[in-house]
Amino acid sequence: MSRSRTDAEALDRSDPLAFARERFSLPEGVVYLDGNSLGALPSSLPERMDRVLRDEWGARLAGSWSAGTWFEGPTRVGDKIARLIGAHPGEVVACDTTTIALTKVLLAALDLRPDKSVLLTTSSNFPTDLYAGSGVAHLVDRVVLRVVEPDDLTDALAREDVAVLFLTHVDYRTGAMFDMASLSAAAHEAGALAVWDLCHSAGAVELDCEGAGADMALGCGYKYLNGGPGAPAFLYVRREHQDRATNRLPGWIGHADPFSFALDFRAAPGIAAFVTSSPPVLGLTALEAGLDAFSGVELRALREKSVQLGELFLEGVLEAAGDHVEVASPLEPGRRGSQVSLRHPDAPGVIAELARRGIVGDFRPPDICRFGLAPLYLTYAGVHAAAAEVADVVSSGASVISEG
Amino acid sequence: MSRSRTDAEALDRSDPLAFARERFSLPEGVVYLDGNSLGALPSSLPERMDRVLRDEWGARLAGSWSAGTWFEGPTRVGDKIARLIGAHPGEVVACDTTTIALTKVLLAALDLRPDKSVLLTTSSNFPTDLYAGSGVAHLVDRVVLRVVEPDDLTDALAREDVAVLFLTHVDYRTGAMFDMASLSAAAHEAGALAVWDLCHSAGAVELDCEGAGADMALGCGYKYLNGGPGAPAFLYVRREHQDRATNRLPGWIGHADPFSFALDFRAAPGIAAFVTSSPPVLGLTALEAGLDAFSGVELRALREKSVQLGELFLEGVLEAAGDHVEVASPLEPGRRGSQVSLRHPDAPGVIAELARRGIVGDFRPPDICRFGLAPLYLTYAGVHAAAAEVADVVSSGASVISEG
Repeated sequence: MSRSRTDAEALDRSDPLAFARERFSLPEGVVYLDGNSLGALPSSLPERMDRVLRDEWGARLAGSWSAGTWFEGPTRVGDKIARLIGAHPGEVVACDTTTIALTKVLLAALDLRPDKSVLLTTSSNFPTDLYAGSGVAHLVDRVVLRVVEPDDLTDALAREDVAVLFLTHVDYRTGAMFDMASLSAAAHEAGALAVWDLCHSAGAVELDCEGAGADMALGCGYKYLNGGPGAPAFLYVRREHQDRATNRLPGWIGHADPFSFALDFRAAPGIAAFVTSSPPVLGLTALEAGLDAFSGVELRALREKSVQLGELFLEGVLEAAGDHVEVASPLEPGRRGSQVSLRHPDAPGVIAELARRGIVGDFRPPDICRFGLAPLYLTYAGVHAAAAEVADVVSSGASVISEG
Repeated sequence: MSRSRTDAEALDRSDPLAFARERFSLPEGVVYLDGNSLGALPSSLPERMDRVLRDEWGARLAGSWSAGTWFEGPTRVGDKIARLIGAHPGEVVACDTTTIALTKVLLAALDLRPDKSVLLTTSSNFPTDLYAGSGVAHLVDRVVLRVVEPDDLTDALAREDVAVLFLTHVDYRTGAMFDMASLSAAAHEAGALAVWDLCHSAGAVELDCEGAGADMALGCGYKYLNGGPGAPAFLYVRREHQDRATNRLPGWIGHADPFSFALDFRAAPGIAAFVTSSPPVLGLTALEAGLDAFSGVELRALREKSVQLGELFLEGVLEAAGDHVEVASPLEPGRRGSQVSLRHPDAPGVIAELARRGIVGDFRPPDICRFGLAPLYLTYAGVHAAAAEVADVVSSGASVISEG
């Protein structure tokens, strides 16, 4: 029997992450299950941003470049991300956008496998990943992009021409999560490198890039990291690759000595070479506020709460309305990211009606209702209530406004 | 005889751009001649940013993507830049960073000259431009980067293998300004395209990309456009090239229908295809505030004031201390951007002593003191006072603190 609201409230009282909720500003009366699209506003940010604008920029002007904290932003923020993805300090930088970061790591990974030609991924990957892969294949003569069905990955890795396997760790539609360790191992077995897109994992899943054998990775700052709309992205290059990995989109900030204004490029040591341009200070300010909201939060506790929220949500929906909806996500929690997706013939209508009731999810074609479960700021009571509303909408037909 | 403070104050009283100064927040007691490094804070921005953070992001959350103004940011802001560079609406987008924008336009321009192989530029170009050019040459097998001395440009264009001439319009060290129209024409004559880096021109020089025959262009948002530290860059692709020009670093936001989540990339029509990733909303908010400070400002008046500020500054320095300093900038105003540079054996010491006196310029190796003249917020009286301090420092030896 599904748990009651009282049960959910008891879970909130014993939630070891309850302290984190007040670090975010969320509108009253809303259960926000779209943090996998855009994370919530860190409460500390408006004041921090105002200080950066008025004091660092307005009052100290260009002096803040030489005397302040701006230049170190990409590596300082990168180090804060490193902890959340199971990487070491000095392995991550925050800069550029997700697609540019992916382009950089794909180009760098290809360099490390000069005798092989194939970029391998699945048709389930997020479209921009496919576009970036295709873009790289067009740019670099020897490279081709091979897109296979997820079930065919093992066979596809059996071929000897694969240079780089690149996958999105958690599927943006279904929330299905790849096993990073076993697929990275399979890639290595095949002589390929493993590149992981962590857009839908970082900040909500217990990640271990080091232990799972990821060679390179990237992700966005604006989902579970709560870095704001269009936040800077991040990229990860494993230490052991850094000596040979090259940023193929180089720029002066990745130079070993930018202010020598030398005519020839000489890469900065380590991950810093992957920074191309002047740090986007305002975007990094927001992203850093989002990351600071993870202070004192253990990844294991984060994942545990995420799983429990998912179980509570599914239980509530399925027991009350299991005949009216199909679960698109894996039912086994270990194979699911921090998101539950349902299929419904009128998915846009369901999402619209839920929004009217203060439950915010989103729609993805053709028939997917997505519900992201950000463990840092959601409550069990909120997710419990959301499940009840979802069950009511799908079973009562209240959704069918798009035919109304 | 050089003009007096009273003369300068009279110029301020009749300055047709005087109304723009209050659109910026500048520290008291400072003459800020470093706007060619980082522009000033638009007064409207702190409140605008707070609204974006609290209302658009915090309260409306991901709903602001579907119902708000975020997605149109790159083209809306691009159109505001278009007016300042002599381009049409629909020819400019604001996104990415300067070096990524340059990489995109170089790759796109090379596509349009598939039978030629050379990227041509000068050794006086800003280093990141050289690094980007070198990066492109490494990426694309057929392409080589050729770097010549500025005086050898005409000869270099006589060779038939030049695909793209790319230059920075105003030299970051000396402020020397290339003639965009004649060099673009020379490039076309040679069968090449002309790509212009407008980092040190946009917002301070009267630009006419259309009339001067620029094929593509790019620039940063954080100098004379006052978009803030690490602001988004912009890029321009002339309308007549847009049908055939390709963004070689494609991403989902440049897709014709991003929310179809199609597996294959199909470019959006026009300049929108050059947007790769989700717009950096906070960075664009700042940049747009900077651009809105140009409202009602005619480019001709902007340029006229910039020239007058330069003349006043040079006159003040040279008449009082002409024996103690060498002018690195062209003396002819028509060949100078919005900056005056002086050579001095102790340039860092001069800049440091001036900063102590509230005159902010900057140093560039080996011996250059740079003084940027942002016509939107500088006063004649301020520049007059700055010239007097410069003259005093270089002639009195007060600078030689680095040997003290």
